[in-house]
Amino acid sequence: MPLSDTERIGEPDSFQQPDRELVRVQDLTPEKADQLIWLRARVHTSRAKGKQCFLVLRQQQFNVQALVAVGDCASKQMVKFAANITKESIVDVEASVRKVEQKIESCSQQDVELHIERIFVISQAEPRLPLQLEDAVRPDGEGEEEGRATVNQDTKLDNRVIDLRTTTSQAIFRLQSGVCQLFRDTLTHKGFVEIQTPKIISAASEGGANVFTVSYFKTSAYLAQSPQLYKQMCICADFDKVFCVGPVFRAEDSNTHRHLTEFVGLDIEMAFNYHYHEVIDSITDTMVQIFKGLRDNFQTEIQTVNKQFPSEPFKFLEPTLRLEYTEGVAMLREAGVEMGDEDDLSTPNEKLLGRLVKEKYDTDFYVLDKYPLAVRPFYTMPDPNNAKYSNSYDMFMRGEEILSGAQRIHDAQLLTERATHHQIDLEKIKSYVDSFRFGAPPHGGGGIGLERVCMLYLGLHNVRQTSMFPRDPKRLTP
Amino acid sequence: MPLSDTERIGEPDSFQQPDRELVRVQDLTPEKADQLIWLRARVHTSRAKGKQCFLVLRQQQFNVQALVAVGDCASKQMVKFAANITKESIVDVEASVRKVEQKIESCSQQDVELHIERIFVISQAEPRLPLQLEDAVRPDGEGEEEGRATVNQDTKLDNRVIDLRTTTSQAIFRLQSGVCQLFRDTLTHKGFVEIQTPKIISAASEGGANVFTVSYFKTSAYLAQSPQLYKQMCICADFDKVFCVGPVFRAEDSNTHRHLTEFVGLDIEMAFNYHYHEVIDSITDTMVQIFKGLRDNFQTEIQTVNKQFPSEPFKFLEPTLRLEYTEGVAMLREAGVEMGDEDDLSTPNEKLLGRLVKEKYDTDFYVLDKYPLAVRPFYTMPDPNNAKYSNSYDMFMRGEEILSGAQRIHDAQLLTERATHHQIDLEKIKSYVDSFRFGAPPHGGGGIGLERVCMLYLGLHNVRQTSMFPRDPKRLTP
Repeated sequence: MPLSDTERIGEPDSFQQPDRELVRVQDLTPEKADQLIWLRARVHTSRAKGKQCFLVLRQQQFNVQALVAVGDCASKQMVKFAANITKESIVDVEASVRKVEQKIESCSQQDVELHIERIFVISQAEPRLPLQLEDAVRPDGEGEEEGRATVNQDTKLDNRVIDLRTTTSQAIFRLQSGVCQLFRDTLTHKGFVEIQTPKIISAASEGGANVFTVSYFKTSAYLAQSPQLYKQMCICADFDKVFCVGPVFRAEDSNTHRHLTEFVGLDIEMAFNYHYHEVIDSITDTMVQIFKGLRDNFQTEIQTVNKQFPSEPFKFLEPTLRLEYTEGVAMLREAGVEMGDEDDLSTPNEKLLGRLVKEKYDTDFYVLDKYPLAVRPFYTMPDPNNAKYSNSYDMFMRGEEILSGAQRIHDAQLLTERATHHQIDLEKIKSYVDSFRFGAPPHGGGGIGLERVCMLYLGLHNVRQTSMFPRDPKRLTP
Repeated sequence: MPLSDTERIGEPDSFQQPDRELVRVQDLTPEKADQLIWLRARVHTSRAKGKQCFLVLRQQQFNVQALVAVGDCASKQMVKFAANITKESIVDVEASVRKVEQKIESCSQQDVELHIERIFVISQAEPRLPLQLEDAVRPDGEGEEEGRATVNQDTKLDNRVIDLRTTTSQAIFRLQSGVCQLFRDTLTHKGFVEIQTPKIISAASEGGANVFTVSYFKTSAYLAQSPQLYKQMCICADFDKVFCVGPVFRAEDSNTHRHLTEFVGLDIEMAFNYHYHEVIDSITDTMVQIFKGLRDNFQTEIQTVNKQFPSEPFKFLEPTLRLEYTEGVAMLREAGVEMGDEDDLSTPNEKLLGRLVKEKYDTDFYVLDKYPLAVRPFYTMPDPNNAKYSNSYDMFMRGEEILSGAQRIHDAQLLTERATHHQIDLEKIKSYVDSFRFGAPPHGGGGIGLERVCMLYLGLHNVRQTSMFPRDPKRLTP
């Protein structure tokens, strides 16, 4: 079927299947010079100038300059048609690839441009965009200095479908996809089994605070705050080493840069042989494999994000630095902080300790081990050598917590005692406690917040930047 | 630290880290004959007989016979201690590996047995187990014939931590872990990006039926019935091809063998160039890669499940069989079914059609394409050539639906018309419709139910067998 150059295909119907290959923008290099190619892309920018129309055509983070000029292959009418195509519309073009004398600095494909012979609109964008992509990727300071617009975060999130098209967003979420893959591949390689745990649960296990309630037929249920109890049941059920990736829910009315009401948990649980440090070693090695994988395979994405949000490269040690809680407290006291031995770390103190550790050890990632028992959940194993402490740990990236974990109590009787001490309704945790009555190996684990890992690895400052469709007490859409 | 043979280690405290390697049961072969080894395992069975105690020690699906006998290496007291260890307790043993003359048919390790020299209880099981593992894996018929016990499904699910220890459960969930991995690896290889979509949403998109309500601070929210709207937004946001794995929620009061209120969705969405069959081809190829991966790498698991639940091997064709809806209807009519052209398929008719297709084409997997428009959701693209039909499809395994999908409408105006036709409140789907206003490529996709795929691949008959902690209208625990 011959297509005229002003015909609009891509109307809401099925397409005829033309006998043509579509080339990717990233493959438009001088090797393709003088070839006639087909391309589908968005109109990134458009500028008409007399008998010519310059377009920049974009696919994700790649773009190329294209030209429609009155002459052999285009009519005046066609130039006018091209000039009227709205930004962000999707077009099919037939064009010849031409080498350029001078590099086109503003495009990813700097050595070629396209001379368009035919152009069809596949999907037309409405003329008024709620935000401009070039504004959305402008570094904060730059906008003010040059009197140019930047886009505030709520506008970006309100129009997420457009904001996600920016080079920065594309890079962030491709890297996030990589984190999940590295996490799973590393653990699968270590012999872990992936499990799926329920999100609708019958009882709020940790006392009922910060839990969302769900209407469940004629009764009520809750959204799981973590898969921990289920991970542990899998250990009691002989799966030995398990992981899961899935949403976790926190009904906390916290409007901070690092809290979400729904986020993605990367969870690990494993039986160990003799010491819970076997668990710490498995988790830190997994984190190190993630950091290395990002460094080695996502450098383009990291550089792209850095252009808009500059930050220092993420540093880590091998093996991972492990400090005891008392050492951390000592470092803080030396820096002038007043705190008791069994006090929990405040967020500012965590940040400060991160800076002190970075100065002293030159690492952005470390483990703080042996937290005071009093500040940890009831199922945390006490330190057998010092009843004030526990076999529990947090892990930090750039001074912010990304994982909380512990050896868990695997004895039903001790678990009951500790739950009673924490004034937890034993009836509500019955099926949990009962899981340990028929033989349970010593085990431990932890849960990692995916959005925080991405935020902190990239040196970003708001977890909403690394959540595709963030949920917080004030945001439920889109 | 010397350990006496009756000392119980593994009490709720940290362990001393002895200088010893623990051997895996599956590695106990004649090559290890006469070696002294350490092993941690469960007591699967225990039988005392005079001055001897026979134990079967188990790790997941592997087990080995072990013997404590009064003589050089064990005292009378030690035999008595061993005989008193409850089934399902976890023990550490030091033992020498001995080749046996006659194969031990009842164990996975048939060529060796262990002569125990020391034994410690790591975790003691309570004496009365709520179910016996050997009863839980007994094929249904066999129990009745021989007057032996089988365990009904509710008892199994009520005591899931023990039921999951059976060879059948271990095999099912290891295979399920494999399905997820094969799904993701195949799609990653095809250039798909993994995304994370929110489960708490502000509006019930498809009219509000079958949706769970969540209390969300001072307002109400809902649990997502599918990630579809978010997948589509990602396509509009230039991610081109995306997938996600995560829970989906259906507040359907259906108490059938194949319905759950929470299950795991394997979701795919992709832009296509010219025809939505490009989408079907991507999905069917992904399914074929999963089937091949299971066949080639999970044969032991498949055989293990077959022992308890016999079924025919799963058959599939390459390329996948694709029938049009009208062809399916014609086959049914030929078999005596009376139905109109635009009627939806009932579950029994789906089953029957599966049998007819199997007879005619010898495949357990096929695609039914071009469903009547009237029976599909509002966002389904109508067939441009016949307004009665649509560019939509279901996929079936052994005659049961495992995927529903379609080309989606990517034009805001047509979408609005179709939503109005379906009497959907436009205000509630505003942000969804708005996603298509700024350029959207033609696209399609589908959602696969993980539990159904595992159930049907293995020829099982209840989806609760392939959900670790199933949720239905009557079950919320454990």
